This record gives sequence, C-alpha cells and structure tokens, in this order.
Amino acid sequence: MKSISSIAIVGSGALGLYYGARLSRAGADVSFLARSDLDTLRTRGIAVKATDGDFTLPSVKAAATPEEIGPVDLVIVTLKATANDQLACILPPLLRENTVVLNLQNGMGVDEPVAAVAGPERTLGGLCFICANRIAPGVAGCTLPGYVVIGEFSGGPQARTQAVADWFVRAGVRAEVSASLAEARWRKLVWNVPFNGLTVAKGGVTTEDIMTSPASEAEVWALMREVQAAAAAHGFVIPESFLVDQVERTRVMGPYKPSTMLDHVAGRPLELEPIWGEPLRRARAKGVETPRLAVLYDLLSESAKRPA
Amino acid sequence: MKSISSIAIVGSGALGLYYGARLSRAGADVSFLARSDLDTLRTRGIAVKATDGDFTLPSVKAAATPEEIGPVDLVIVTLKATANDQLACILPPLLRENTVVLNLQNGMGVDEPVAAVAGPERTLGGLCFICANRIAPGVAGCTLPGYVVIGEFSGGPQARTQAVADWFVRAGVRAEVSASLAEARWRKLVWNVPFNGLTVAKGGVTTEDIMTSPASEAEVWALMREVQAAAAAHGFVIPESFLVDQVERTRVMGPYKPSTMLDHVAGRPLELEPIWGEPLRRARAKGVETPRLAVLYDLLSESAKRPA
Repeated sequence: MKSISSIAIVGSGALGLYYGARLSRAGADVSFLARSDLDTLRTRGIAVKATDGDFTLPSVKAAATPEEIGPVDLVIVTLKATANDQLACILPPLLRENTVVLNLQNGMGVDEPVAAVAGPERTLGGLCFICANRIAPGVAGCTLPGYVVIGEFSGGPQARTQAVADWFVRAGVRAEVSASLAEARWRKLVWNVPFNGLTVAKGGVTTEDIMTSPASEAEVWALMREVQAAAAAHGFVIPESFLVDQVERTRVMGPYKPSTMLDHVAGRPLELEPIWGEPLRRARAKGVETPRLAVLYDLLSESAKRPA
Repeated sequence: MKSISSIAIVGSGALGLYYGARLSRAGADVSFLARSDLDTLRTRGIAVKATDGDFTLPSVKAAATPEEIGPVDLVIVTLKATANDQLACILPPLLRENTVVLNLQNGMGVDEPVAAVAGPERTLGGLCFICANRIAPGVAGCTLPGYVVIGEFSGGPQARTQAVADWFVRAGVRAEVSASLAEARWRKLVWNVPFNGLTVAKGGVTTEDIMTSPASEAEVWALMREVQAAAAAHGFVIPESFLVDQVERTRVMGPYKPSTMLDHVAGRPLELEPIWGEPLRRARAKGVETPRLAVLYDLLSESAKRPA
C-alpha cells in the first residue's frame, strides 16, 4: 500500500482538533474541514491544552469545502453521528481509490453510514478512550489522553490498519489495532452507556458526581453488566477486568463532563441511537434483558426531543 | 364509638382543599390549618374547579396554629411527606383520646411518622386515586375525582374505618375500606412509581406525553411489573386486571401533571423516599430485582438534591 501522508479531518470538535493538531505536529499534511470555526482556524490556528503538554499550531490548513481539500490518503471523521446525513456531500471529494476513512464516532451502527458513502472496503472505525472537550473554537482541552483502538469495518486487520495506528503513535497517542471493530465498539459502550447516560439523565452532572455516590456507582456497574451481557450474546466476551479498569480510570478522572452531557446542557442533539438505541435493539435481538438501558433510552429520548 | 363531626385538615394543597371543601359542604365542622394560604382562606374561602362540578365555599374556618383548632374527631393529614418533621408540633394539639388521624400521603413508610406522634392505635392511612392540583392559594382543581381507599395502620378494619369512609361518601367521594393498608399502598405505587417517576425524570412531561409513546408505555408496564413483583414478595398479590385498569384510566386522563412533576419543575423537594426509595429497599429486602426502579431512584435522587 501507498504510505499515508495527507490527512483530512472532518469535524472540528474536541477530537478533530486534538488528533488533527497532534498529527500535524508529527509531520502529516493535515487539512481541517471546518464550518463555523473556519476563520478562527485560519487566523489563529489550533491550541491544545492538555495535561500531557500544551502546544499551539499557529498556522493550519483549513478549508470550507471538501473540494478545496481534494483527495487525501486518510480521512478522519469526527463529526457527531447526528450529522451523518452530511457525509454523502463531504466524503466523495476527499476520496481516491486507496483512501482510507477512519470513523471516530461513538456507538453502534455509526460505521455503516460511512461505509455506505466511502465503500465498506475503505472504511475503518476507531474508538477514543479520552477525556477531551472543545474549550472554544480552535481550542481543544484534554485532561486524559487515553488511547485509541482501530479496526477494519469488514474483515480483520490489514497492513493499512497498522499504518493508521502508527500515525497516531507517531503523534504521541497510544494506539492499538483491534481484531474486531464490533467487539471494540461494545467495549467502548461499557463506558459510554452508563457515564454518558447517567450524567445526562441526572440533568447535567459530572462523572465525579456519579462516582462519589455509592448508589450511582452501583447503577454504573449494573449498566456495564447489561452491556457486557448484550456483547456476550453477540459473541464478544468482555472480561471483568475490563469493567474494573473502566471504573478505576473514571474514579481518578475528576469532574469530567462527557460530550453528550455538554450537548444536553447546551440543547444540542444527543447521539441517542448510537449509544443507547442501537445497543438496546441488538440486545433485544438476542433476547438479552437490559432493563436499565431500556429505561435510560426512554428517558434520554425525551431529552433528545427537546428543541435545540 | 363517638361519631365524627369535627375535622381538621392539615395541609392546604390540592387534596386538603378538595376533600376539606367537600366534607365541609357535606356538613362536617371542618377547620383548615394553613400557613401561607391563611389570609386567602379567611378572606375568600375555597374554590373547587372540578370536572364533576365547580363550587365555592366563601367562608371556611382557617387557623394558623393547631392550638387555635384544638382537639377534633378526625385529623386528615395532606402534608407532603417531606414536611413530616412538623408532625410532632402539629398533631398533639389536635388529638384527644378517640381522635383518628387519617394520613393521605403517598408512598411507603409514611404512616409510621404519623403513628409515632399520634400513636399507632389512632392512625389510619388513605390512598387517593385522583387527579387534583392546587391551581392557586385556596383554589383546588380536579380533573378526575377517582376514589379513596382507607385502611387501619395496625390490624384490620374497625367501625371507625367505615365511619371515615362514610364521610367521604357523604361528601360525594367514592371511598372504600381496605382490609390491608399495606396492600393498598403497594397498589397505589403501581401508578406512582412509573408515572410520577417518568414524568419527573423526563424533565417535566405529562402523563399524556408518556402514554402517547409506545416505548414509554412499555417502560410504564415494566415498572408496574417490578412493583407488582415486590408486592408479591411481601404477600400482596396485585392482579393483572389492576395494572390494566391503571393504564386504561391514565390513557384517558389527558395531559395530567402529577404533583411530583410539578414539585420538580418548581424546584420543590420530591417525595423521593416514600415513592421510590422505600419500595426499592423493601424489594431488595426480599431479594426481588427491580432494576428500573433502582435506576429511577438514583436519577431522581439527583433531582431531589437540587436546591429548591
């Protein structure tokens, strides 16, 4: 395969800014597709405020349209899944035959819309175990750099899968290749279902608020076990040690505000279906009872209905 | 027993105003213990705006202290359970040896604080299946008159139990005596747990919003079955027909706002423990899994923590 040098970042939220800036600093030819942040990126570049080191990129390549960027080696999708109807316009100008598209969206059923536009053979998915927030236009905050897990949408890892992971490593991000993207997505939901769910459903609290209440921590565990049971029914065994690790990482995270919670508080649409709806449907399809996930999905559906 | 003629109403919310006004109109000697509404009750009396007929009582007996009222035959407690720490001051001046105290509070574990002050032998409990709201000081709205179930706190029905129920009937309220107050309280929770819970946890929606969503109605049924299972473990068999009846009554109720939901929206404290906490603990004490009740209790605990 041709090596990766040009990268387009689609979406200039926390993940797009943080990973894009790091990849750029590591020597990749990175272009940012931006809308409302375009002027900021062009005039002031990107600032990263991270617990593992602040840095600024005073000058970045930012474009208003995918046509301005043109075909690249790697497209990294960091849009919210709620904006996936835009992919049909955004992706095609960025693609050539060997372009790979790495989808960093959260949840279940989010790679399919990417694959529908880019083709399944060009689609990769990635899970970001990270605490990052967009502090302001062009400014990414990161309080826990965490790691990235990358997998192919169809079939097992290829040379290119590792090549994409290698770019993250070169950019200073821990990255690993997963033999199964589907399993990786279930693992990520072990965290997102309880923590994104409870912080929103409690009206906008932090992970610390959850972890300092024994009753709430018990609900976290119960929700994690529901996701674990649903994953197991689909053939993915998530070990107890993974759950323990997720809880212990969260315990020391401080008052983290998951992006879904910030979306909720700001009246923006929630990634309801990828994080709660689709896992619930997949659990039901296998006859797995996930009562807490079910009631959480129903409660968050109401929140998702509110006008933005 | 001495017949009941003098009645003190403690609490001038929807239930206190509605039942007190009806009892007064039916010929009882009713005194209202009021705080913030005292002047309104004294100058303008009580207005009832009900689907089964509006009426006004231009002149009612309203008192600022229980001492002004003195001992009565029947005390009807319609305070919120969250105000039960006031009972030790309010009740004693209203009691003589044969006084009976009817507690109309919602939920589990609410008769015990009344019995602790009035004595278990003087305590009765009642459940109000009614849609009523306090529209303004001294003004009670009622969109579904429903019925009242009355039972003894300790032991089975006595002549006085029926005598209290008879007063409600005389006042135009359907009333029945229950052989088991505990069972009646479990039955009431079949409605309160899902409907009060979901309307609050969804941020302040109506019962109609719940019933017009098939997914939400499914959650209502699942929550009702959890209460049913917990009740069964305590020896109280609530038949399927009761659940069906509760759902069908709610379906035609229109956009009803349970008092807990109004409390939540207004930032007032929730009756968290009687409606969700105590039933959850009683379910757990019998080893009954009630996962939806558990997550709802945790979510509503957060809401209950908010400053009023």
